[in-house]
Amino acid sequence: MIKVGIIGGTGYTGVELMRLLAQHPHARVEVITSRSEAGTAVAELFPNLRGLVDLKFSKPAVDSYQDCDLVFFATPNTTAMTQAKELLAAGIRLIDLAADFRIKHVPTWEEWYGATHACPQLVAEAVYGLPELNREAIRGARLVANPGCYPTSVILALIPLLVNRLIEPESIIADCKSGTSGAGRNASIGTGFCEVTESVKAYAVSGHRHLPEIKAILQTLDADADLVFTPHLMPMIRGIHATVYANARNSAGPVQRLYEDYYRSEPFVDVMPAGAHPETRSVRGSNVCRMAVHYLEAADKYVVLSVEDNLVKGAAGQAIQNMNLMFGLDETAGLGAVGMMP
Amino acid sequence: MIKVGIIGGTGYTGVELMRLLAQHPHARVEVITSRSEAGTAVAELFPNLRGLVDLKFSKPAVDSYQDCDLVFFATPNTTAMTQAKELLAAGIRLIDLAADFRIKHVPTWEEWYGATHACPQLVAEAVYGLPELNREAIRGARLVANPGCYPTSVILALIPLLVNRLIEPESIIADCKSGTSGAGRNASIGTGFCEVTESVKAYAVSGHRHLPEIKAILQTLDADADLVFTPHLMPMIRGIHATVYANARNSAGPVQRLYEDYYRSEPFVDVMPAGAHPETRSVRGSNVCRMAVHYLEAADKYVVLSVEDNLVKGAAGQAIQNMNLMFGLDETAGLGAVGMMP
Amino acid sequence: MIKVGIIGGTGYTGVELMRLLAQHPHARVEVITSRSEAGTAVAELFPNLRGLVDLKFSKPAVDSYQDCDLVFFATPNTTAMTQAKELLAAGIRLIDLAADFRIKHVPTWEEWYGATHACPQLVAEAVYGLPELNREAIRGARLVANPGCYPTSVILALIPLLVNRLIEPESIIADCKSGTSGAGRNASIGTGFCEVTESVKAYAVSGHRHLPEIKAILQTLDADADLVFTPHLMPMIRGIHATVYANARNSAGPVQRLYEDYYRSEPFVDVMPAGAHPETRSVRGSNVCRMAVHYLEAADKYVVLSVEDNLVKGAAGQAIQNMNLMFGLDETAGLGAVGMMP
Amino acid sequence: MIKVGIIGGTGYTGVELMRLLAQHPHARVEVITSRSEAGTAVAELFPNLRGLVDLKFSKPAVDSYQDCDLVFFATPNTTAMTQAKELLAAGIRLIDLAADFRIKHVPTWEEWYGATHACPQLVAEAVYGLPELNREAIRGARLVANPGCYPTSVILALIPLLVNRLIEPESIIADCKSGTSGAGRNASIGTGFCEVTESVKAYAVSGHRHLPEIKAILQTLDADADLVFTPHLMPMIRGIHATVYANARNSAGPVQRLYEDYYRSEPFVDVMPAGAHPETRSVRGSNVCRMAVHYLEAADKYVVLSVEDNLVKGAAGQAIQNMNLMFGLDETAGLGAVGMMP
Repeated sequence: MIKVGIIGGTGYTGVELMRLLAQHPHARVEVITSRSEAGTAVAELFPNLRGLVDLKFSKPAVDSYQDCDLVFFATPNTTAMTQAKELLAAGIRLIDLAADFRIKHVPTWEEWYGATHACPQLVAEAVYGLPELNREAIRGARLVANPGCYPTSVILALIPLLVNRLIEPESIIADCKSGTSGAGRNASIGTGFCEVTESVKAYAVSGHRHLPEIKAILQTLDADADLVFTPHLMPMIRGIHATVYANARNSAGPVQRLYEDYYRSEPFVDVMPAGAHPETRSVRGSNVCRMAVHYLEAADKYVVLSVEDNLVKGAAGQAIQNMNLMFGLDETAGLGAVGMMP
Repeated sequence: MIKVGIIGGTGYTGVELMRLLAQHPHARVEVITSRSEAGTAVAELFPNLRGLVDLKFSKPAVDSYQDCDLVFFATPNTTAMTQAKELLAAGIRLIDLAADFRIKHVPTWEEWYGATHACPQLVAEAVYGLPELNREAIRGARLVANPGCYPTSVILALIPLLVNRLIEPESIIADCKSGTSGAGRNASIGTGFCEVTESVKAYAVSGHRHLPEIKAILQTLDADADLVFTPHLMPMIRGIHATVYANARNSAGPVQRLYEDYYRSEPFVDVMPAGAHPETRSVRGSNVCRMAVHYLEAADKYVVLSVEDNLVKGAAGQAIQNMNLMFGLDETAGLGAVGMMP
Repeated sequence: MIKVGIIGGTGYTGVELMRLLAQHPHARVEVITSRSEAGTAVAELFPNLRGLVDLKFSKPAVDSYQDCDLVFFATPNTTAMTQAKELLAAGIRLIDLAADFRIKHVPTWEEWYGATHACPQLVAEAVYGLPELNREAIRGARLVANPGCYPTSVILALIPLLVNRLIEPESIIADCKSGTSGAGRNASIGTGFCEVTESVKAYAVSGHRHLPEIKAILQTLDADADLVFTPHLMPMIRGIHATVYANARNSAGPVQRLYEDYYRSEPFVDVMPAGAHPETRSVRGSNVCRMAVHYLEAADKYVVLSVEDNLVKGAAGQAIQNMNLMFGLDETAGLGAVGMMP
Repeated sequence: MIKVGIIGGTGYTGVELMRLLAQHPHARVEVITSRSEAGTAVAELFPNLRGLVDLKFSKPAVDSYQDCDLVFFATPNTTAMTQAKELLAAGIRLIDLAADFRIKHVPTWEEWYGATHACPQLVAEAVYGLPELNREAIRGARLVANPGCYPTSVILALIPLLVNRLIEPESIIADCKSGTSGAGRNASIGTGFCEVTESVKAYAVSGHRHLPEIKAILQTLDADADLVFTPHLMPMIRGIHATVYANARNSAGPVQRLYEDYYRSEPFVDVMPAGAHPETRSVRGSNVCRMAVHYLEAADKYVVLSVEDNLVKGAAGQAIQNMNLMFGLDETAGLGAVGMMP
């Protein structure tokens, strides 16, 4: 049984880790910390866990985790980078669900996150935890940078096109629609029910932090890759729908078969039949990224539609998938939940 | 043209006053204050008002209102009571959309609102601004206490039964369902989109501040009136649905005709045909309280279903209806908007 | 491995049975029928099941089920009663998720369902499948009548009060709020998104088919039990919130401890601490019925708040719980999913 | 007072016409027809109109409209084309809210709408009712083709760029998000609450009927214009958010001032300040199209964000704006409603 710690467990990725790990056959949460809720029973804050989780939130303290095999950081950005070194030194493996170790080029990270990186020496070591790209490296990693929610959906949509050089790499547009849980569990007017429901808006059109992350990973596939990325806030809790456009190179034509073949053995990527349109609800609560690829002949463009649950494949589920790889377990352990329709 | 001031204009009742007054033929907002947003253009905070409202929020200061004929308090509870005296002395008439002057029995008010009343001498003078009960008194009032959202829907549902002594006055149960805008425009986790949507809950079952308000008004109709009041939070922005139960007295039987007659001349109360079920959306954005009354013969009980838009008839619309009465205007001026379906 | 058949699998209870059974360790769906979708892959209609379910819908035909140990009827009312006899004769055990066998008094059933009962002789044999009441009888049953969604939430809320004679049995009011999935997966204007969202309404105030079902079961606990039952349609997919009122008998006082004791060993009933307010979302996707019981001293009334997922504990989950009992399995097998928050 | 008829008044554009015209100072609905609801009171089907509209739906018959000055077709596609000739001959002016007269090239229309055009000779005469493009022609028109909802938002977003030759005309991508009311008031599973809420999907990626309409109008501005158009279904009632991408020509740079100037005198187009992000809710119930234009320097692309209420500026409101022009009224008459926030 893997002994797990969660740092910063009061947010949506924290409770989602708890929900998924409550059913994991080989892992057990030993400690969960929160500065603000120390002493509160986890199941008091999240009553869906009543009867399943007896833990209380404890104050964050390095020695809390000493018996853990693995610690998840479900903290805001810039927290993990201050604690990672010490925990690694204690022999604990780490998965950061925030952004501290996702971008290899530290000055870029510092520009977008408005902070000096506290631990640049670990950035190079960290493995970007997208199993479909980095499965082998994840198995051996001490420190995994769990991908952002938008990047997961956009990158998975593009891998087969980029690795096969089928698109003009600078023509990519990713128009993304995200449920509000992506904004976290915070007291803010802007994410209030009455502000979000029955409305749609774009935000951060001039630049969102997930843009350099996506770009950097795409450039590992094609050095010329670049994109326009437009996030939109949706009146729903969970789900990301990425609509990704790119110009075909040399009129490459339909790629249905190529996508099916590329992802055939991936347990958590589902390529739908030609002409399909995935719905975010089909993956609600599940770790699947479901996609459909369209080739528009008149425009000679590809449109890839890719959906995921931003809290599962876009966060906690992918983190557990990475944990499974790191500890030699079946990659799908604890991740069998079926998308909830309706 | 009536010159209007709004104190505390950044909440949902504030913006709703602005929306409705922007179309009022005989009133004009001269000043709107906000401590936190002083200097910000109103239309920047509320872009629905772009092109219609040129005002900026100004710092609250008594002399701001000196040219006003009327001031609306769209402030939190316990604000109006500290400023009412001075404004009245300056000859300005007042409508408080909060609770400071709703309950005549000051110790009861102090118990439920957890504060010492700053201005008990004005409580007696204040008129409870439910036109269907107090139309004449409102016309002459200097100070109107605008009713709470729940009380409006529950009291209107019960008046014909109580004044005709048709129910056991202590048997009333008001099971109420409110949209989330009733909780105001605040930064809080509990009213966040992801917390509210796709869920329903009761709250304050052991006692809500609108209980003593409802009880006190009902007792002016029947001294023995008492009730159980259970508010529930609904995953919608606007709307209150009151489901009000009471035991018939002496098997009084159907009262459809009685309700129709009682409210026939009321411009903002609509009694539906026998057997109907009103929907909150039918009054979205309108000042109408729509109701249907059912008599259950087997149980010898009445069930009255009453719906309103909590921000209009339950707050800003009713306040303007009161203003119209106070200034001798057509009671319906500026309140002609039709409910928005769908 | 129990071999399962599902008749009428294209509705919401059908897909929910598929979702839950896809993860059941000891049951396997062998056949699923649909008149309208015969030949279509189940996963084409319900893409959440892609990669998990290879079945196609087949035409309903009695010999389809000959290898099944158990058949679920996920059909509209009045279907199961025409096929039950033949299937039982073939040695197949049955769980009807519709209403054909829920009401023992056949004339009452016929009045409310507007049909002549095709199989009255089996009504007496059928066991009402509420494990918390009838666990032993369910174990031995050939034919289980799975309870309605509203009845499950209301009855569970009242059992401890009624069996302990703590309430006036004719004073019960059940004000219930249901998500729209309770109306089924049908093409109708009334359940359209634009008709339902951002609105609340009561319906069937003069009488709903679940009323005689609830009443009949309550009367097995207290022969004088009677109630007013008011269903309301909520703008959410899943969840029922029952707010149940009853007058205390002899000022019986608080019953927190009594509820906790009564349900302590029930795997799927959770009594919250005193003063709590359950949210429907806390049981979304889970088989738990969660409740809180309030005693209002001033009114000498009880208010019980009870929430469930209408598609799980209110339908498919409870059906699987019954299956587990009928086949001697762990009662909780396949039902471990945690409520999805957010 | 203009005498108005509405043909096919039971859909969402029909009720929206009724809602808006109920407050119009110079127009009055004399007759409203419906094949399915003939004899039903309009206010019974749409209770928001109770007390305001006394009309009943009548059977469609040509002589019903003989006293009308204007008839709106709020019918499905292919209805208006069969009746237009006769009504025009009777001296009645027409506005078709469906698509029969929007596309000048009849074979294109016939290909996309799968029907033979019943009245091609009127297609040439019909004026495309986008006042911002065709104001003068609309004033004199007998027959106005009211634009589609998506086309209105996309075309208005692009006019200043196209007429000033600032973009590569074949590079346009319009990624559009529409509320569900755009699908009409129909009994269908796909638009059911439980199918739509808490989910997002693209549809008709390979080609939507609004594509040829948009393309044809854009080509009147730049003959080389072409686009990819991707509609998405949103879990909200009202609102379209168009996110329109285009490559700058010759690195044309920022165009904020150009947009502001271009639309300065338009009563129903609002250009937000640089850097803004419009929300669909800011125009809920109003006739405004609100937009913000971003220039992405790194990508040398424009991103125009444009929002409207699909039932108002995208349908019934724009139709009334056209009526106002046709009859020499103030263009804004009856269209003063402020967007409803929250």
